[in-house]
Amino acid sequence: MRLANRNHGALLETLRHDVTPAGLHYLLNHFDVPYVPDAAAWRLDIGGRVRAPFSLSIDEMQHLPQKTLRVTLECAGSGRAEISPRWPSMPWMHGAVGTAEWTGTPLRYVLERAVLDTDVVEVAFFGADRGFDKGIEHSYGRSLKPELALGDDVLLVHAMNGQPLPPQHGFPLRLIVPGWYGMASVKWLNRIEALAQPFDGYQQVETYVYKTTPRERGTPVTHTRVKSLMVPPGLPDWWSGRRMVEAGPVTLHGRAWSGGGVPVTKVEVGVDGLWTQAQLDPAVAGPHAWRSWQFTWTAAKGEHELACRATDANGQTQPLEAPFDRGGFGNNMVHRLQVTVR
Amino acid sequence: MRLANRNHGALLETLRHDVTPAGLHYLLNHFDVPYVPDAAAWRLDIGGRVRAPFSLSIDEMQHLPQKTLRVTLECAGSGRAEISPRWPSMPWMHGAVGTAEWTGTPLRYVLERAVLDTDVVEVAFFGADRGFDKGIEHSYGRSLKPELALGDDVLLVHAMNGQPLPPQHGFPLRLIVPGWYGMASVKWLNRIEALAQPFDGYQQVETYVYKTTPRERGTPVTHTRVKSLMVPPGLPDWWSGRRMVEAGPVTLHGRAWSGGGVPVTKVEVGVDGLWTQAQLDPAVAGPHAWRSWQFTWTAAKGEHELACRATDANGQTQPLEAPFDRGGFGNNMVHRLQVTVR
Repeated sequence: MRLANRNHGALLETLRHDVTPAGLHYLLNHFDVPYVPDAAAWRLDIGGRVRAPFSLSIDEMQHLPQKTLRVTLECAGSGRAEISPRWPSMPWMHGAVGTAEWTGTPLRYVLERAVLDTDVVEVAFFGADRGFDKGIEHSYGRSLKPELALGDDVLLVHAMNGQPLPPQHGFPLRLIVPGWYGMASVKWLNRIEALAQPFDGYQQVETYVYKTTPRERGTPVTHTRVKSLMVPPGLPDWWSGRRMVEAGPVTLHGRAWSGGGVPVTKVEVGVDGLWTQAQLDPAVAGPHAWRSWQFTWTAAKGEHELACRATDANGQTQPLEAPFDRGGFGNNMVHRLQVTVR
Repeated sequence: MRLANRNHGALLETLRHDVTPAGLHYLLNHFDVPYVPDAAAWRLDIGGRVRAPFSLSIDEMQHLPQKTLRVTLECAGSGRAEISPRWPSMPWMHGAVGTAEWTGTPLRYVLERAVLDTDVVEVAFFGADRGFDKGIEHSYGRSLKPELALGDDVLLVHAMNGQPLPPQHGFPLRLIVPGWYGMASVKWLNRIEALAQPFDGYQQVETYVYKTTPRERGTPVTHTRVKSLMVPPGLPDWWSGRRMVEAGPVTLHGRAWSGGGVPVTKVEVGVDGLWTQAQLDPAVAGPHAWRSWQFTWTAAKGEHELACRATDANGQTQPLEAPFDRGGFGNNMVHRLQVTVR
């Protein structure tokens, strides 16, 4: 409950907005939001296995070539509350997802200036957020392989939806790694370190790993899995969230996305277990943003279950049941809604 | 958990900001956030027991005299999770509070143009948000007495912190009632109705009422009670939220506020149950905004309990234990934190 009070998802009805309005983007912070009253004093240090270590201010960063990308980010733990037994971390239901226009400079300009040594196997990114997890004190840190870090779409970002980053989204500087679950997009970024061995920081090896048993090494969480969500139709009940819909034609709206730049190819809507293809809008906002879908449902009086299911160009389809994971990561099961039609 | 995923409080570390940054202001919505793609089509209807019913667009509203007020709003249910037995509504811990600069026109210009009939005893306000509670379908609605509604500081608001209202905070138009718990500040406002009898809408009489037993009529929730919160010092643990602090002098920061324009007169900090007066900053931002306080604590190694307690000009002081209320309303008990000093 304490974690649910601190972290919040998008409200599903606001999926109608192409870009998630300020304050409705999901938020998952491991530690405190750093208080940064003077962004002019912020420095990003680039070091480790590089030929030319240096540091940059936010102002200097803004004088490098700028790029704006519309990116859908989802928390790797989204949907965790539906997996049983439930891992006692942030109890996400649906909606730990959001889409924003991120503006900054491609990371590669900075890495190319530093010149990575030839033995570099990973590049690690550290935030100013610091605290304890299982007794281990650390600053939040994550790594990427150089070939990904040197791609065009990994950004060092200072603006979100045309405004300076809000404090809780990483002010004054964060990383954005499109197509990956949100844990890769390190906030309050103040240090980059090139490494000759794989990064073994807490947030890289102790969590964000797919496991079905406690002892196994597991598989690192990386790309976002294919997923879709539906704007709940009709009117809600405050206590149960159950929906009341008027009989007749109802236009259902939703969003669908996948990871790693892989396009969604199909969205289906399930009504009481019968699946029909929905209309999927074109990817007008680039390969990293969710897409809109619609479906006209003729609602007949009674109790119904609605669901939506996306498939991507890799042939991946959302499963009907939550894939079991011990930490509750990567749950992309179909989104179901119970509705009463009157 | 479903309600905790939808509604969110401020993060206590962000109390360092005089004005709560966008997206960190607490949020409590009973029903869906209305989707309003075309604010130009929005109308506010003023009717009921008035001589001259009329309606206004947002644009017309913005041509009336404008006023900006810095207002601290708190949810009446803030702290509910600490009251036992816990009412199964939104499980707020601390932090269902925020401060914003609200811009709009004083409500009285609109009421004076409509001319209230002499038999008007209440003015009711309705939002576009609609749904069910205990089987009763209704649009969110609340009322005020005419003498309050005709005051200078009750505003019809179209901007928050200099930006158009975010959808979740009432876009394109909401009421702001400074000094009252947040339930009075109706969002997505589209209708005002002057009444010759007390308003008996669901949100006026069935909830937001102080009760200690189920059957009693109870006392309506109105003004915000005196309260203070502390920015948690040191570093947090992800799972427990417990704090780790370095030994030596530590500056504690926090905020204090009361309701009805009554000034806070004193803030005390408790260390292991011993209370000392903190430094309370002047009310530079007007009578409706929280005030900043500081206290230097010399942290000695070991386990400690920190607390803060405010007193207002009416002589009201925060209680040490949560005042029992069946619905968990108005909990202004002192804010306590467990810290480990190393």
